[in-house]
Amino acid sequence: MRVLITAGPTYEPIDPVRFIGNRSSGQMGAALANAATSAGHDVTLLLGPVTATTPTNVRRIDVFSSRDMHVSVLREFPNHDLLIMAAAVADFRPKSVNEQKVERGGTMTIELESTEDILAAAGAIKRPDQRTVGFSLVKRGDLARSREKLRRKNADLIVYNPLDTMSSKTIESILLYPDGRTEDLPLRDKASFAKILIERGEQLFR
Amino acid sequence: MRVLITAGPTYEPIDPVRFIGNRSSGQMGAALANAATSAGHDVTLLLGPVTATTPTNVRRIDVFSSRDMHVSVLREFPNHDLLIMAAAVADFRPKSVNEQKVERGGTMTIELESTEDILAAAGAIKRPDQRTVGFSLVKRGDLARSREKLRRKNADLIVYNPLDTMSSKTIESILLYPDGRTEDLPLRDKASFAKILIERGEQLFR
Repeated sequence: MRVLITAGPTYEPIDPVRFIGNRSSGQMGAALANAATSAGHDVTLLLGPVTATTPTNVRRIDVFSSRDMHVSVLREFPNHDLLIMAAAVADFRPKSVNEQKVERGGTMTIELESTEDILAAAGAIKRPDQRTVGFSLVKRGDLARSREKLRRKNADLIVYNPLDTMSSKTIESILLYPDGRTEDLPLRDKASFAKILIERGEQLFR
Repeated sequence: MRVLITAGPTYEPIDPVRFIGNRSSGQMGAALANAATSAGHDVTLLLGPVTATTPTNVRRIDVFSSRDMHVSVLREFPNHDLLIMAAAVADFRPKSVNEQKVERGGTMTIELESTEDILAAAGAIKRPDQRTVGFSLVKRGDLARSREKLRRKNADLIVYNPLDTMSSKTIESILLYPDGRTEDLPLRDKASFAKILIERGEQLFR
């Protein structure tokens, strides 16, 4: 398979120095890239601004903002079979970017707008021979929201993650499928989770 | 000398996942810590959330937000002779932190307030046997602003940096002293700049 994996955070510029970021380490994406290459797949990794060690036999494309990530996914997805969106893409970005660094003093207001929904955009252009997998990082127990994402984004598999396990070396998850099936994956390290998720990705084509 | 060095960015929480950050790599602080230990000084490094390789014989304290950095500097400074603030501390932080992750959709407004001026706070509690050094990253040519910072923050030396050299492996600078003296340091790599700045720091005690 040709596997497209997104990983890491995205940073949304406020001015030449500042940005809005999120606490993604990119570890999960790196683990998925490792597991996919080990299983013999061709891997393209779209990586946000984070220092992650990536396998040498991976085609790596560095991106900064959610807009970069959106453009890169729409460009790369047609040349891949499976998309796994493990990146913690920003949900909001400043409406406008200050050209000058704003000096300290007083207060300041930043107006934010929603970013593109990249998984939904990929789901909308998905061919019958392609599959998409997303992550849903939500408040513990809120599986209803994850199920709703699965439907709305036309995904083939959603990984539910309780928010309180964020930035951890381990992952606790439930896999959700469009036909209502679920698979419970109790706490384990990210490398062994990644191996299972790549196998489940392969099974989506059977 | 006992040298206290601050380095890296600070991240200001918006909610459990998001923060406002800035593009500091922490390279300058790591170079200063190296140069200071090589010159035989005892070094404490207060490092923001960045993956920087630090010398093994440095006492390293990791911090996240500008508030952490402020508290740590005020606690550590009394036990040091020289403070060099090379950290890119955030100038603004959200007035309130959302306890829940805000979901994508529509627009959002973040109200920001000014953070503490840490170099000024250290300048205010400085004893006659202590010295403080700051960096001033401003628009190219705006030395007047850097001079104003030197005075207002009661610093013994300010390093003027043009903003356009940010995130670079090299540094172009002008050293500004309270008596009006200046020293021009044309473009050079950060390691050789750090060696010079530590020497200038030593000279502040003569």
